[in-house]
Amino acid sequence: MTSTSPQKPMIQAARGEKPSRWPVWFMRQAGRYLPEYRAVRADVDFVTMCKRPDLAAEVTWQPLRRYDLDASIIFSDILIPCIALGQELTFDKGHGPRLSAPIRSITDVKSLKSPDATRDLGYVGDAISLTKTKLKPEQTMIGFAGAPFTVASYMIEGQGSKEFTEVKKLIFCDRPVITALLEKISQLTVDYLLMQVKAGADAVMLFDTWAGQVSPGVYRDLIFPCTNKIISEVKRASGVPVIYFPGQGSDRMYELTGCAADVISVDWRTRLSRAAEILKGVGLNVTLQGNLDPQALLAPEAELRAMVRALKDEARQAARAHIFNVGHGLLPHTPPESLSIVIDELRK
Amino acid sequence: MTSTSPQKPMIQAARGEKPSRWPVWFMRQAGRYLPEYRAVRADVDFVTMCKRPDLAAEVTWQPLRRYDLDASIIFSDILIPCIALGQELTFDKGHGPRLSAPIRSITDVKSLKSPDATRDLGYVGDAISLTKTKLKPEQTMIGFAGAPFTVASYMIEGQGSKEFTEVKKLIFCDRPVITALLEKISQLTVDYLLMQVKAGADAVMLFDTWAGQVSPGVYRDLIFPCTNKIISEVKRASGVPVIYFPGQGSDRMYELTGCAADVISVDWRTRLSRAAEILKGVGLNVTLQGNLDPQALLAPEAELRAMVRALKDEARQAARAHIFNVGHGLLPHTPPESLSIVIDELRK
Repeated sequence: MTSTSPQKPMIQAARGEKPSRWPVWFMRQAGRYLPEYRAVRADVDFVTMCKRPDLAAEVTWQPLRRYDLDASIIFSDILIPCIALGQELTFDKGHGPRLSAPIRSITDVKSLKSPDATRDLGYVGDAISLTKTKLKPEQTMIGFAGAPFTVASYMIEGQGSKEFTEVKKLIFCDRPVITALLEKISQLTVDYLLMQVKAGADAVMLFDTWAGQVSPGVYRDLIFPCTNKIISEVKRASGVPVIYFPGQGSDRMYELTGCAADVISVDWRTRLSRAAEILKGVGLNVTLQGNLDPQALLAPEAELRAMVRALKDEARQAARAHIFNVGHGLLPHTPPESLSIVIDELRK
Repeated sequence: MTSTSPQKPMIQAARGEKPSRWPVWFMRQAGRYLPEYRAVRADVDFVTMCKRPDLAAEVTWQPLRRYDLDASIIFSDILIPCIALGQELTFDKGHGPRLSAPIRSITDVKSLKSPDATRDLGYVGDAISLTKTKLKPEQTMIGFAGAPFTVASYMIEGQGSKEFTEVKKLIFCDRPVITALLEKISQLTVDYLLMQVKAGADAVMLFDTWAGQVSPGVYRDLIFPCTNKIISEVKRASGVPVIYFPGQGSDRMYELTGCAADVISVDWRTRLSRAAEILKGVGLNVTLQGNLDPQALLAPEAELRAMVRALKDEARQAARAHIFNVGHGLLPHTPPESLSIVIDELRK
């Protein structure tokens, strides 16, 4: 079932081999900073774009037309599977995602649907298959999902949060509820990622944006085991490389002993060299991805080039291999020309 | 000018001596979780409470009436000095602080006032002096200020922020502006903290809540030097212990080489033992403060006691001395009885 190819630099780097060139892509490279994205988005709401393979493929292709990128990540959202689980997902202007009927009890968890990834989320697979028809053979198609804790946090809070009080109530006062929810999400996530690989994904990424919102002990005991089980099962069943992004700082990296991921994506809050040191310390020999501050793309050309050079120097010494990226998703005010500067400086 | 006393357990611990008992206080211990606080607050807005020494002292005393605490931190806000600098400070319900006329240019920086701490912020000193009249000799009076980067972030954004885009624009595109602003805030902060010591503060704390919002390199080059200069000057001129809180994770701790603080306050995102290891690694022999997740106070009594015991065990091995605290401010939904449980378990 593996669809990797030795000519794909990103896959070579992910596997710890010497890539034919330094691979680069940008988290949220299909997004609002591109006028052609805003043009598509003007006529259609965000969830509909994710559900229509023609539109999802179109905006996924947009950055590939502008930039010489090594990878393409399917346009979607980490909360799309929540629709299949029975919650209603909306994006209010200026507010971010909202999920209906937040999960607060074991009854709420049991009332969730038991979706079939192919039947209920097949549109994501269709978007991947369609996107892949226009990728070059050396380009990597990345599928993705939210890590279960991050998805669960939204399902519990019903929206983004600053304090995660409802999540913490379950962690500290009613752990069986969040455990059951994490289990439910995990089962779906394995099937969902394997469906994406079947549709053509050459690698998959697990986004744990909110991993930094729990203390290291809770992360180690409750969150990392279910996350790592997904990584192991997807790897075993598909053979594709798995990238894990434990968001917001290095404190969780100390807890990753036994992590099955091929690549750890590093937040910009952490020095790349420090991440390498910490991960080696817990016995991991992984490829690193990252980690320019996305806001650094605001800098004038000379400063931006200097930052890219500094990161190259750091990356050369840090890990078995490196995939150049930002340390968090691109922001809507990113100047599109900055991506060209980064890529040009990297290729030098 | 030093007002320390050998009988104050918190000061003993801060200096690295063996305290007569394990000191404990709680960040934001005067706050909305207490019904008697809400009763005072019902009739008067937040800024007025900070400006009236009688009201500030009253709410500062409230937790001391309920709990056997080793320290009292003056009720105020890190943005109060911005009023003296010429910005208008308001707190909108559900929104948090707002500052008028956000700072975006060198002209904006130059248009700020040059306040005199005693003349323009004397009400904070008056509140400290009044509060101290009812403290026991063994209780420590803590004064505080925001660290310059955190204060500057609010002054630049005009409010709280998720992405800190206006701050990052200055960092990456117009560094002289933010450098001048940090310098302006730093000058005032030294005078402001020394005024608080003169009024009776036995120790001072510098809150750098947003330190985690810049990459480690920017923190080291731009932010830490001005922060550490304040710490050094306050220590030199007053002799009181200085506590520094580099918020949100351990990544900044690696950059603290040469830090003059006596105590590092540790965020709940970091293991206390890890903080100790990192700080030793950069040559610091400091006391640690923290770091229970404030949300852990939601837990049932048995679980809460177990978490306090675990933190005691970790603290005993971690540092030269330890001041028990939460790893971030108490939240409005904290059950007041949980503080009694924590203190009781600590004293066992």
